[in-house]
Amino acid sequence: MNSGADLEKYLHDKIPLTVAMGVRVAECDDTHLILTAPLAPNRNHLGTAFGGSLHSLATLSGYSLLWWLLRAPDAHIVIRQSEIRYEKAVTGELRAFCRAPDADELAGFRRDFARKGKARLSLSAMIEQDGVLAVQFRGVFVAVAAKK
Amino acid sequence: MNSGADLEKYLHDKIPLTVAMGVRVAECDDTHLILTAPLAPNRNHLGTAFGGSLHSLATLSGYSLLWWLLRAPDAHIVIRQSEIRYEKAVTGELRAFCRAPDADELAGFRRDFARKGKARLSLSAMIEQDGVLAVQFRGVFVAVAAKK
Repeated sequence: MNSGADLEKYLHDKIPLTVAMGVRVAECDDTHLILTAPLAPNRNHLGTAFGGSLHSLATLSGYSLLWWLLRAPDAHIVIRQSEIRYEKAVTGELRAFCRAPDADELAGFRRDFARKGKARLSLSAMIEQDGVLAVQFRGVFVAVAAKK
Repeated sequence: MNSGADLEKYLHDKIPLTVAMGVRVAECDDTHLILTAPLAPNRNHLGTAFGGSLHSLATLSGYSLLWWLLRAPDAHIVIRQSEIRYEKAVTGELRAFCRAPDADELAGFRRDFARKGKARLSLSAMIEQDGVLAVQFRGVFVAVAAKK
C-alpha cells in the first residue's frame, strides 16, 4: 500500500461499513493518520454523531495507521480492547486523528513482529469539534504475521 | 414505544447506520434486550465481524434497553464512555445481549431522572459466539429529560 488512496480503497473493499459511513483517508504518513466521515450517514436520534460511528472511525484510524507503519500488507491486525470517552457532541464532519507512537515504541513493536511474528501496540486517537476535544479513544491492537 | 418492532423502526428512522448494519431487535422486555445484525455488511478484512460493528451493536443494545426501561420517549439518552474487550472473533451473526440492571439500581436511576431531570447508569452487554463469550462491553449512559 503506497498511498492514502490505496488505503481508502482497501478499507472500502474489505470493510463494507466504511462505505456506508463514507470514510475517507484525509491524511496519512509516518507521523499520523486522519480519517473523516460526513455527519449525515453517521447521525443519531439527536442529529449529532452516533457514538458507534465515532468509535468505529477512531478504531479504523488506529488500525489503519498501524497497518501503514507495519509495512506488511499480509499481516493480520485486530483490536483486542479499547476505551472511549465522549466529552462533547460532534455536530459536523467526523474527523479522527491518530498519532504514531514514539520511535522507541514503534521500534519495539517492529522488533517483536519480526522475531515472534506477533506484536501488540496501544494507540490513541481523538476527535475534535471546532478545535475542542470531543472524543478520546485508546485501543490495543495486535498484529500477527500471515502464515506462509 | 410499545414493542420491539416500534423500537426497531425508531432505530432505523433515527440512526441510519442501523439500516446499513441490518440491526434487528430480536428480544426486548424489562429484563433484557437482544439486538442482532448479519455478518455480511459488518465483516472486516478477515471475514469476521468488524470491531466497530460489534461496539456499535453493544452500544445500541445498552442505549435501547435504557430507553425501553425509562418509559420517557422524549428523553435524550447519550453514551458518556465505554470499554470493550474483544475475546474471540465473531464469525456468524452478531448478537448483543444487554441485561437490565438490578431493581435497586434501576429504581435509583428512575428516581434521579424524576427529581433532577438527569440520571446516569452503567450497563453491560456481551456478544457470544457458539455459546462462548466473544465480546464484553460496559458503557455509561446518561438520560436527560426533554426541555418543556
